Amino acid sequence: MNALVDRFAGPAREALPRLTEAERAVVERELDALGHADRTGPLFDRLRGVAAEVPERLYADSAEVLLRMHEIAGSGNLQSNLSSLPLVRACFALGLVDGSGRGGPAELVVGRGHIAPAFYAEHYVRGALPFAPLTTLHQGGLTGVVHRDLGFRNTMRYSLGVGVAQAVSLAWELTRRGMDRKVVCLAGDGELHEGVTFEALRFAHDMGLTNLVLVVDANAKGIEPLAKPVNTDYLAAYLGRLLEADGRDEWAVQTALEALLALPGPSVLVCRTRKGAHSYKPAGGAPRSPAGPSFASTTGHLLAGHQARTGREMAVFTPDLAARFGLPGQVPYTNTGLAETLTVGMTLSLPEETLKVVATDAMYYMDSLSMLTEATTSVRNLLVLAGRSWGAWGGAHNATNLLGQLLHTRVYEPVTAAEFGACLDRLGRDPATAHVLSMVDAPFEAPARDCAADIDGAVWLTPPDGGGADAAVVTFGYAGVLVAEANQELGLPHLHCAAFTPRLVPADLAVLRGCRRLLSVEYNGARGGFGEGLRARYLLPVEVHGVRRDIAQQVHRRQLPLHGMAPEMLRERLALLLESREVERAPAHA
Amino acid sequence: MNALVDRFAGPAREALPRLTEAERAVVERELDALGHADRTGPLFDRLRGVAAEVPERLYADSAEVLLRMHEIAGSGNLQSNLSSLPLVRACFALGLVDGSGRGGPAELVVGRGHIAPAFYAEHYVRGALPFAPLTTLHQGGLTGVVHRDLGFRNTMRYSLGVGVAQAVSLAWELTRRGMDRKVVCLAGDGELHEGVTFEALRFAHDMGLTNLVLVVDANAKGIEPLAKPVNTDYLAAYLGRLLEADGRDEWAVQTALEALLALPGPSVLVCRTRKGAHSYKPAGGAPRSPAGPSFASTTGHLLAGHQARTGREMAVFTPDLAARFGLPGQVPYTNTGLAETLTVGMTLSLPEETLKVVATDAMYYMDSLSMLTEATTSVRNLLVLAGRSWGAWGGAHNATNLLGQLLHTRVYEPVTAAEFGACLDRLGRDPATAHVLSMVDAPFEAPARDCAADIDGAVWLTPPDGGGADAAVVTFGYAGVLVAEANQELGLPHLHCAAFTPRLVPADLAVLRGCRRLLSVEYNGARGGFGEGLRARYLLPVEVHGVRRDIAQQVHRRQLPLHGMAPEMLRERLALLLESREVERAPAHA
Repeated sequence: MNALVDRFAGPAREALPRLTEAERAVVERELDALGHADRTGPLFDRLRGVAAEVPERLYADSAEVLLRMHEIAGSGNLQSNLSSLPLVRACFALGLVDGSGRGGPAELVVGRGHIAPAFYAEHYVRGALPFAPLTTLHQGGLTGVVHRDLGFRNTMRYSLGVGVAQAVSLAWELTRRGMDRKVVCLAGDGELHEGVTFEALRFAHDMGLTNLVLVVDANAKGIEPLAKPVNTDYLAAYLGRLLEADGRDEWAVQTALEALLALPGPSVLVCRTRKGAHSYKPAGGAPRSPAGPSFASTTGHLLAGHQARTGREMAVFTPDLAARFGLPGQVPYTNTGLAETLTVGMTLSLPEETLKVVATDAMYYMDSLSMLTEATTSVRNLLVLAGRSWGAWGGAHNATNLLGQLLHTRVYEPVTAAEFGACLDRLGRDPATAHVLSMVDAPFEAPARDCAADIDGAVWLTPPDGGGADAAVVTFGYAGVLVAEANQELGLPHLHCAAFTPRLVPADLAVLRGCRRLLSVEYNGARGGFGEGLRARYLLPVEVHGVRRDIAQQVHRRQLPLHGMAPEMLRERLALLLESREVERAPAHA
Repeated sequence: MNALVDRFAGPAREALPRLTEAERAVVERELDALGHADRTGPLFDRLRGVAAEVPERLYADSAEVLLRMHEIAGSGNLQSNLSSLPLVRACFALGLVDGSGRGGPAELVVGRGHIAPAFYAEHYVRGALPFAPLTTLHQGGLTGVVHRDLGFRNTMRYSLGVGVAQAVSLAWELTRRGMDRKVVCLAGDGELHEGVTFEALRFAHDMGLTNLVLVVDANAKGIEPLAKPVNTDYLAAYLGRLLEADGRDEWAVQTALEALLALPGPSVLVCRTRKGAHSYKPAGGAPRSPAGPSFASTTGHLLAGHQARTGREMAVFTPDLAARFGLPGQVPYTNTGLAETLTVGMTLSLPEETLKVVATDAMYYMDSLSMLTEATTSVRNLLVLAGRSWGAWGGAHNATNLLGQLLHTRVYEPVTAAEFGACLDRLGRDPATAHVLSMVDAPFEAPARDCAADIDGAVWLTPPDGGGADAAVVTFGYAGVLVAEANQELGLPHLHCAAFTPRLVPADLAVLRGCRRLLSVEYNGARGGFGEGLRARYLLPVEVHGVRRDIAQQVHRRQLPLHGMAPEMLRERLALLLESREVERAPAHA
């Protein structure tokens, strides 16, 4: 076991063809050094050791390094990183980043989650990181968001705005211990829309914490431009001393921050920066991801079609994720900013007949489930779009299962336009039930058959021969697409469901009950998920194949094998069903 | 079916012995009128009709009515209501409350959820409500929090701070329709700690909404005093025009609010009020609830004992619910104010070895599940106390099930001090797993045996005869106490579990598998709960008896029959198991 090699060598080797000759030469030497590097101690220290062994620097400017990282990765948030780079450089210059989590004039908590690459780039030019890891961004090596294994004081995974809470938690703990050490929190102006950041600043103020210094990258842009610039009166009301600096000038940032660190009491430094397009698009044209639009990005078009067909009034709210759902140019929508709980709350006082659509990542509802219950219990005609990014940012594996637990709610994962339409029609017939649609943010080919005719039912993508079967597989949503591909040669009977809690007809149930072995597959958390639901509701001895570890911050094609969902892995899993001679074998997880 | 009679007659009759002679005479006439009242139209209009039929008023002062309502109910938030009463009167005087949801100079959204009684009292003295409903507060008739069936524009159930979001949702909708009608939102200063209220005010400001008027009852007190008074600079930063008024002077409030309604643009009126003790205690001594402290209120004592025993450093955070858990005087704690997400976030940057305790109502975690996942995935030694109030305020029936779905989490519902201690010991042995303890806020007698010796296992409270059984009941946590009482004469084999996902030993499993009929009982949401877990994990054909409708806003003893948990109802349910001759009967809910 060599964690360095396990984590970085594979993706770095895969990246070799995309490197310049000079980069390739260095990375090959670094890979060699990784192989015989010290196998103990923190990961980041070991990377530092490799950098010391191959000290040659290919680039001296971290902005150039950032560009190369994103060119090599083919995706990411280059502009966010560039917008924060002068702030990051100022933090380095002031000794706030030492990569070991110790020392320095103050603690640094990075709330702007996805500017981790700016730190990696700066570490690189300063000789603390090799080049090889930089070529693994979003590919299983370096994460795009901060993680304490990778030179940061804090880890961000789930909750937007968590960084400010982490900073206040630390400031409170230091205060409680009688230490007057300051905590610098690097935050974005979009992130400050999150309610929890207010909760944290209000608490820090009311408890009289004197050691918090908030540094704001005020680029006035999330994915879309912010409706208004950050409200400095608000920040001053809670943090007192407020300075503004030209955030494009690292020297200005450094000077102002140094002054604030020297002064007693809390303060805030607002850095006016500039940011280009949010998501990185390779200059050469198409990104490296599979061709075609993601299913999620067809949502706007599908909603527009529904509206044209039904003439129903529609109000769409999204916390800055309109692009993900392909809303612009298709339907009017309100960008609520990074304020997920309010986004849900915006549906509460609208006319009954209005179709209320909320669209964000499935994960982001997890901090709004009470508010969502307010909506599911009191609002009619509510459509909840729960994006599954599976991508670089996250996509909690249990989000669908949590949403499925809410009152007056039904969950679906449509994989064809017709299934999406059937969900909307169903909502029209049953407006008192909130319809949650898990929307997969990946391109794929629609299966040959779907559940559109009976969205609560199930359809055989591969029917059993002569009405009976020895083994069969039942799938939920997108997993059906993956299984259909894996099952092409095997031809195992395959029942596809778009509903999270499908109603199986007696004939299908009889086939399933007659099977010697049954497998359920869902690209979704196994615990409390679709397969367990079949076991609980029908007492079917289904072997549950689902996501058992958390969705990682990696691109889609790397997530699939991580969760046993790559077609060749599914093929093996399906083949096992046929080969086994065991009878009534108890499922592994029972 | 007469909804008026169904809802109010029973509890009003039960209240008769607690009424004065004059009250009793009026209520009896009103009950008669209820019986033959119009059975169509909105509930509130029908109550108004009864009031018109029995026009005699017993009291002319709504403060006196409020006092009587609380004396009769024996519980509630009298002081909160008195603190807001001048604001409520001003709203009536300005025509903002008409009970029909139409007309008036502006829309009124009541964010201070539990001041509904102040409105009922004022409606009473103005002739719009009979006296009988007032005697049913918290007893199944009138709810303590606002509900649109009871003369309000909005309903509050789950999410603290929801009122401000509802007001902004409405203000946005009116603006979108080109109407310049204003929305008055009545909020409390404690409630303004909630992140979503900030999200809503920030959005309203940034979108340029001009029709929001926020009225703040600034009594500087939640359950405990607020750490600092409401921050007027913050409110002015988002709402612009800010007035302050003496909130104890209804005329001052009315004048100021009238002026703000007449002026263009958004504004905020801060009313300085005064509030006594949060929870109403009858003057005569003990409340009418069963004797003895609730199990939840012993938490502080149990934590103090654990700390004394282990010497472990402990940090306890609660959003204003220290009293519920009996923390004062037992252990140091930090009151984070009404800021649940931050409360969870406060655990994120503490030393690994510190025991981190978060204590609030189970329901309040539902708006913080992402933040909680940040904690369960990155924090060691995390104890999550999830209070189950079952009481006047709420206690979402699915909260435990949602918490059970989180990563790296195990859920228990201890019912003895020893079981509580066993959970803490287990956390000590397995510090990487967050331990969620469902803490029942009701007094009860501990069962004779418990799971303390093996907290993940199960123990027979009534063992099967000779090792086998024809029928058996398996219970989770508090339901075990209720079933033990119901089962005294029946003597059905009864297996008690403190763990939400117990590990059953083969011998017990064999007994259960041998049963002709099996029942599981949990005072918890059936969907995705304990019983369904037994079905899913062990494929046991358990008939699930759990909460299928939402927990209502009623006192504990009224909740029990509502959910089939009253001992006599459980006795009947258990008896059914013995009598039935059906074999392998499929459970009703499958």
